[in-house]
Amino acid sequence: MAQQAYQDVFSGSISHCWGCGCNNPHGLQIKSYWAENGEETMCVWQPREYHTAAWPNILSGGIIASIMDCHSLCTAMMFAHRAEGLEWSDDPSIIYITGSLQVTYLKPASVDVPVTLQARVKEERGKKMIVHCSLFSQGEECARAEVTAIRYTPAKE
Amino acid sequence: MAQQAYQDVFSGSISHCWGCGCNNPHGLQIKSYWAENGEETMCVWQPREYHTAAWPNILSGGIIASIMDCHSLCTAMMFAHRAEGLEWSDDPSIIYITGSLQVTYLKPASVDVPVTLQARVKEERGKKMIVHCSLFSQGEECARAEVTAIRYTPAKE
Repeated sequence: MAQQAYQDVFSGSISHCWGCGCNNPHGLQIKSYWAENGEETMCVWQPREYHTAAWPNILSGGIIASIMDCHSLCTAMMFAHRAEGLEWSDDPSIIYITGSLQVTYLKPASVDVPVTLQARVKEERGKKMIVHCSLFSQGEECARAEVTAIRYTPAKE
Repeated sequence: MAQQAYQDVFSGSISHCWGCGCNNPHGLQIKSYWAENGEETMCVWQPREYHTAAWPNILSGGIIASIMDCHSLCTAMMFAHRAEGLEWSDDPSIIYITGSLQVTYLKPASVDVPVTLQARVKEERGKKMIVHCSLFSQGEECARAEVTAIRYTPAKE
């Protein structure tokens, strides 16, 4: 049975996220899944022809940062749900937000073919998870990111 | 006399950059100018209502990273042209690309009002410039970035 994408569980405001919300028609609508090994998450995403950098057909560094940020945050939430034995739900009980994002650009990636993201939680420190993410295009690693995801606790009313 | 925006000098492929190209109708089309003090660059930019994070009316972290990346790179090019006494031109003789991008998110920024970016070159190390950039919304600093811009030399034919 095909896995459901993590982002497709949501219908509320979270589903309008520009980077990954399934209900934002202007957004990038990335989809995150568990990799077969269960230790990493995956995302395969096709850029649009206008997601270019200053060179024709080269993927924008801002778009790369955006999809790596969203996929890494969703990875943190997927790991946290699994670690705590919780199902994904439309009203998520575990929310992470981005504290910081570090992207190193290694090679140009093309807008003409899909990019693949692989991510894993590298470390947990209290309320923080450090997520490592790599972006591949045509089998080559083109960018590497480290995202510090911070567990968000809504203020009590 | 009003300054011309750095991005409005270009008409070739660079003008199709998703983050800052004036000829990319799907892009963010940010505009970078010298600040009055001549030591910093400025950009004022109005998000669209769909540039949201997972919360309503809060600006996406990916969009923040994208505009800080483009404004910082343009800042590196503006500083380099000035240091070398060169005019901006449609066929730029000085090009920088992003080596790495580090964004720290301090506070949420609203999509409802313009954000302001301020950037300056903090350091030059050979072919690299380290650019510091801050993003403000409603007078508060909401994100801080450090971009390593690398001077790009096209391969000789």
